[in-house]
Amino acid sequence: MVRPLTVETQFLDLGGSLPLDSGRELREVRVAYETYGTLSPERDNVILVCHALSGDAHAAGYSTTAPAASTRDGFAAESRDGSQGKALGWWDGMIGPGKAFDTDHYFVVSTNLLGGCRGSTGPSSVNPETGKPYGSDFPVITVADMVRCQRAFLDELGIERLASVAGGSLGGMQALQWAVDHPDQVDSIVVIASTHGLHPQGIAWNAIARESIRRDPDWQGGHYYGTGRKPDAGMGVARMVGHVTYLSAPALEDRFARRLQFADDVRYTIDQPEFEVESYLDHQASSFVKRFDANTYLYLSRALTYFDLARGKGSLADALAGVRARTLLIAFTSDWLYPPAASEEIAAALPGEKELHIIDAPYGHDCFLLEEARQTPIVRRFLLGDKEE
Amino acid sequence: MVRPLTVETQFLDLGGSLPLDSGRELREVRVAYETYGTLSPERDNVILVCHALSGDAHAAGYSTTAPAASTRDGFAAESRDGSQGKALGWWDGMIGPGKAFDTDHYFVVSTNLLGGCRGSTGPSSVNPETGKPYGSDFPVITVADMVRCQRAFLDELGIERLASVAGGSLGGMQALQWAVDHPDQVDSIVVIASTHGLHPQGIAWNAIARESIRRDPDWQGGHYYGTGRKPDAGMGVARMVGHVTYLSAPALEDRFARRLQFADDVRYTIDQPEFEVESYLDHQASSFVKRFDANTYLYLSRALTYFDLARGKGSLADALAGVRARTLLIAFTSDWLYPPAASEEIAAALPGEKELHIIDAPYGHDCFLLEEARQTPIVRRFLLGDKEE
Repeated sequence: MVRPLTVETQFLDLGGSLPLDSGRELREVRVAYETYGTLSPERDNVILVCHALSGDAHAAGYSTTAPAASTRDGFAAESRDGSQGKALGWWDGMIGPGKAFDTDHYFVVSTNLLGGCRGSTGPSSVNPETGKPYGSDFPVITVADMVRCQRAFLDELGIERLASVAGGSLGGMQALQWAVDHPDQVDSIVVIASTHGLHPQGIAWNAIARESIRRDPDWQGGHYYGTGRKPDAGMGVARMVGHVTYLSAPALEDRFARRLQFADDVRYTIDQPEFEVESYLDHQASSFVKRFDANTYLYLSRALTYFDLARGKGSLADALAGVRARTLLIAFTSDWLYPPAASEEIAAALPGEKELHIIDAPYGHDCFLLEEARQTPIVRRFLLGDKEE
Repeated sequence: MVRPLTVETQFLDLGGSLPLDSGRELREVRVAYETYGTLSPERDNVILVCHALSGDAHAAGYSTTAPAASTRDGFAAESRDGSQGKALGWWDGMIGPGKAFDTDHYFVVSTNLLGGCRGSTGPSSVNPETGKPYGSDFPVITVADMVRCQRAFLDELGIERLASVAGGSLGGMQALQWAVDHPDQVDSIVVIASTHGLHPQGIAWNAIARESIRRDPDWQGGHYYGTGRKPDAGMGVARMVGHVTYLSAPALEDRFARRLQFADDVRYTIDQPEFEVESYLDHQASSFVKRFDANTYLYLSRALTYFDLARGKGSLADALAGVRARTLLIAFTSDWLYPPAASEEIAAALPGEKELHIIDAPYGHDCFLLEEARQTPIVRRFLLGDKEE
């Protein structure tokens, strides 16, 4: 097996201003990105990979610096790579030579989302109007705004067409939005564990996570930068909620059952973790707050609950009527946050060429990060067709 | 239909001290209770009804005082009774003449749990050792401690045997514990939407709720009484988590879909509710914190996660080997917090006479409060047998 390369995150400053769905605009937008593979002379082999809520531009290879914690989510956060502090990208299993997004064929581009906290412009960036971090003065952004930012970024790179746009969860929403907004520039999209519009239980989980952050007094109305205090307590709870929704009940049963962490019997405590699953959540919360900005969590969570392709369009079929990209949809049976039903609805509403694969797998929403081996042949066949032997 | 009576909550002070599983003991324990129906001269017609996490002694009839909010949970919290400020008990549909727990036959007793905040001794009660509220000095209690308290309370009332012990959720755990701890004093138990031990996802939700309370600075290490501040923010989030887990995803879809609360399109806000389901959760949170004590939430949540009949017993069958009570188990197909599988495991492990009914109903865990009509004939047949025409 080829050892993953070390990859350095790069940065690009967009010229001009970026208009937003809200009617506001952003100036001096920076985009953090990484690329893998080689751009063809015809510039026709570009795959844009889009990350989810807590990801970043570092999708593959080893990073040059050791971050505070892996950007992989859930069970996938546990290092399986012997990277000795140099974190592997969140989709390393999917991007590289011979992998699903095959860098022997494709030039893969991964950007940190607009609104992010890992190098791209977001709420923790300096507002050029004030010289101070935006905080909650950052404009509310949408998935369409993220795509608009990626479009402007690719323009700067001199890339007009995309062979594919791919992503899971919020990343899949971006892929769908690309196909809707730029039908003539996208040959295909790969939409994994995603939806055309989160169901109300998913809206509720996101609302709870945001409430938890906003109710933390250290959030300070969103202007906590430079105060020495940040809403770690609230974001920790938000992250715990997220984790439970990313996993399935059977996966938790299989992994933790009702095992106690510290003793053979309960210790009669209300302020200490007692069960293994409680310690696990505690650990996930405390490592997450070290690497992620609470305002970015708020803004991206809001964007993904706003995402609704059918809103104002009559029907989902009407909303997707102009899509020309070949579409690959993958969903997982145990994913109750982004259930397969949503992918089925998208498949039914798409006018053109499409494939839907529902993979029977136990890990819930996290499958899109964990079930790399089973996704790989599906994605390769979809992208490479005859070139795939 | 008979109009429900007005019922007054009564109080009884236990003599002596109450020993606890933790090795600690409680002195000067008070129990709030209500009774419905008439005690037979033989004292053989007593049904003890046990409430769940957020309930109280007011199980049936109208209360004499208007509380800040109904003690019914979830969708059931919405008044259907035209009570004009005099709240109906949380199980009024199940307790009364001709109802499931028929007060023409039975003397129904309902107590506020040990650890509660609605009249029984709990963390908000005055600690006789210090003259101040216990706060987090209150001992950690278990379901077995709740049963021990109920046993002592019934002794004071001169009631030795119980025709039945009944409850849903945490209330069902108490019924099971009664059957295990007092096999010769309990003729039957009615265990609804409950379990012999919460699965790890349920443990996780409870841990998140407790974390949310404890991380609120206004919790003040549990000693917030008299400070003018209490952890309403954190308990609000805890309550939101609870609500989503009490309901099913389809019930939320059916009720709210993705409808916006205030306008035809999104308003680009990160700090205001936007979807109907977000407003609903906001409202549930703010009404709950007016009526419930955060420390009671912590202690009861801990007790229900500790509950595990099989722990230290080899197997569930071993734990239940001594049970002599006839057992009625009811579970609901859409209840993912207390799934039917747990009731099936109990039924399989019980040595004696038992019935399991799995009701196909859409409202999730809240079904035990909402599906009164479908539970009624099952409970009546189980309790009254030949007397039921």
